Amino acid sequence: MPALSYELIQRDAASNARLGRVTTPHGAFDTPAFMPVGTQATVKGLLPEQVADTGAQVLLGNTYHLMLRPGSALVAQMGGLHRFMRWNQPILTDSGGFQVFSLGDINRIDDDGVRFKSHLDGSTIELTPERSVQVQHELGADIIMAFDDCPPAAQLSEHQRQRAKQFGSNVSASSAKPQAAAGSNAGSGGFDAAAYAERERVANERTLRWLERCVTYHRGSGRDATQALFGIVQGGTDLDQRVACVEAVCQHDLPGYAIGGVAVGEPPEEIYRVVQHTAPLLPADRPRYLMGVGYPADLVAAARAGVDMFDCVLPARNGRNATAFVPDGAIRLKNAKFRDDPAPIEAGCDCVACVGSPSGGGGFSRAYLRHLFLAGEMLGPILVSLHNQRVYQRLMLDIRAAIRDDAWLALAERWPCVSGVLTA
Amino acid sequence: MPALSYELIQRDAASNARLGRVTTPHGAFDTPAFMPVGTQATVKGLLPEQVADTGAQVLLGNTYHLMLRPGSALVAQMGGLHRFMRWNQPILTDSGGFQVFSLGDINRIDDDGVRFKSHLDGSTIELTPERSVQVQHELGADIIMAFDDCPPAAQLSEHQRQRAKQFGSNVSASSAKPQAAAGSNAGSGGFDAAAYAERERVANERTLRWLERCVTYHRGSGRDATQALFGIVQGGTDLDQRVACVEAVCQHDLPGYAIGGVAVGEPPEEIYRVVQHTAPLLPADRPRYLMGVGYPADLVAAARAGVDMFDCVLPARNGRNATAFVPDGAIRLKNAKFRDDPAPIEAGCDCVACVGSPSGGGGFSRAYLRHLFLAGEMLGPILVSLHNQRVYQRLMLDIRAAIRDDAWLALAERWPCVSGVLTA
Repeated sequence: MPALSYELIQRDAASNARLGRVTTPHGAFDTPAFMPVGTQATVKGLLPEQVADTGAQVLLGNTYHLMLRPGSALVAQMGGLHRFMRWNQPILTDSGGFQVFSLGDINRIDDDGVRFKSHLDGSTIELTPERSVQVQHELGADIIMAFDDCPPAAQLSEHQRQRAKQFGSNVSASSAKPQAAAGSNAGSGGFDAAAYAERERVANERTLRWLERCVTYHRGSGRDATQALFGIVQGGTDLDQRVACVEAVCQHDLPGYAIGGVAVGEPPEEIYRVVQHTAPLLPADRPRYLMGVGYPADLVAAARAGVDMFDCVLPARNGRNATAFVPDGAIRLKNAKFRDDPAPIEAGCDCVACVGSPSGGGGFSRAYLRHLFLAGEMLGPILVSLHNQRVYQRLMLDIRAAIRDDAWLALAERWPCVSGVLTA
Repeated sequence: MPALSYELIQRDAASNARLGRVTTPHGAFDTPAFMPVGTQATVKGLLPEQVADTGAQVLLGNTYHLMLRPGSALVAQMGGLHRFMRWNQPILTDSGGFQVFSLGDINRIDDDGVRFKSHLDGSTIELTPERSVQVQHELGADIIMAFDDCPPAAQLSEHQRQRAKQFGSNVSASSAKPQAAAGSNAGSGGFDAAAYAERERVANERTLRWLERCVTYHRGSGRDATQALFGIVQGGTDLDQRVACVEAVCQHDLPGYAIGGVAVGEPPEEIYRVVQHTAPLLPADRPRYLMGVGYPADLVAAARAGVDMFDCVLPARNGRNATAFVPDGAIRLKNAKFRDDPAPIEAGCDCVACVGSPSGGGGFSRAYLRHLFLAGEMLGPILVSLHNQRVYQRLMLDIRAAIRDDAWLALAERWPCVSGVLTA
């Protein structure tokens, strides 16, 4: 029996969206699915039970962070990531590639792999396709990702800056530390388009060679009975490159495929253009995962393009920054206008922050949440993270309902923040 | 009907300990009771429901912190502290006195009151007996405390330093910022005993004059039907002073009485000597509250002296510092020896950290908790706070069982850390 199976339950009448179900050794999850990010073996500030109560059925863990601390060998010794962090449902780990390129201090990158300095203690670490898969074997996630070459976005687009401002996030949705493309001779303010394109081309080709090595190592280990390796389609914003990458990646018969290199600085229209072109090219009988995306509107647009799985740090990061997602956008709870606002974050939301406990007699007021953030109390980030994670899961429930009932208009009415991608 | 009633259920056969029940407008709590501290309208890191699940039936809120931020008028506007923080069980607020003297930058102190600079923004604030009671009226706690003059402990005793070291707390149990006695001409390293004694004498007399004003203001407000004002017995370590203070304070017919000025730097034997002498002098038909105490052994010794109510920041503060209370003392979870320890903090503990969620299949390992603290993840303080708060409530359950069943030997066996005060 393979490690993973995908059941395509229903195709949408109006788009490429699909309703499905992915089954893993640690249970199943409904798709389209949103995976909260548990970078360091914890979804920040939340107990596993609280995460499950938001409706999340699958989590993402970060290989880069976990290999540095506490180390994948220790996690393996403690019974694997599920047992270590007490999450008994499915887990996906990324390959570490994205973080090596965005957080690591890279000494050398070539066809063999990447040598970098740990952002924690400066020690030199080598990550190769084989080592990435081996680390993910030790972590023991149900879904593991091929190691890819991820040139960081050259710069934040003006559009993304606006968007981050609107939603209260200090940095880009997916990258904590955007850098100039490696090998580029552009200054910190400039942008060398030709060098960037060349770096992209090298990355795409290298990613394919590395995929080959990941597949070989994974199959040779015998772990493919319990862990499903997904391939990653790179190709930047060049649709021809994307098509070529899809063809090359799909020559490997893998249990799932991901679209990478998206939402690394480009405006949403570019994301949608790439995803709408790429997702339908992927095999219909395998789950499709769009990495690191994104805002609610992005999820709706990508789900309609046929994407099944998502992850993003936004609900947690914005929660810590006192920015709460609401159906028509976001509110910043530190704002003075909430000083004496007795209303919960969102009337009608069924999260712990908005409803309170069964015995507590109602949700927490915006005034109280503002107080917690101004006072630097942990409960502020906890409550807004609980809310934001539940908002994302409510959105996924509504997306699945829209596919099942062809009810996209109801979705747009309920979520004004996504209506733009539905009426466009 | 008075705001508070105390039912003395059973006297201990072997000591002055009492089993009782205090009933307030927000429900009842069993005594001896431990009150978790919710300084800024939140028990740090925990949802109110989680606090209730540890077994806590009554919380303490800090008047000083809440009057500065968010302000008692705002809390009143939001329906009072219970509603603001979503805690529907009893709340006690202190008078602000202790924090003014330990945190505030005092400009002037005289018989009228205290003028000090806020530690938050440096603004000048005046606190008088009337204003303290008025602020506590606005907060709306079930039990409010008379405003007292609290000269800070002159210095940390060597014993207390050892104890803090043993239990992993950086500072004294009750005072965040011990200072030289105001008016003392001692240098930072020295200690002027005569000046300190004089400051104590002035404080004791002033506290009595201020109590008179608190009682008059409180009764005049008509709030004594819904909020119970407790008087505070000061007197330092001089037993004659304590006796005189008890007599003077108890001339006011109040629904409860507190012992203040204890555990401000003196060794435990001094605490016990003062409490054992003072507590039995207080009226048997009113609850007795020992302020800011303490370690598990202190609670047992004081309960046996006849004390009914306790509060202390230790379970929360040590939880944040990765120090977990266990029956024979404490363990420091950052210690390297826990690196790969699969055991929970305490085998047999029924807290969320040790048992996990109903669906989670077991408690969180010491190895995992260590990882969370090293990684700076919020979930570490959350889990160890949940454990420590539950440990204190388990201890109170066992103290109450020991009184009910005359089973102090069983208590000593179950809690080696308190056996010293039982066999002495």
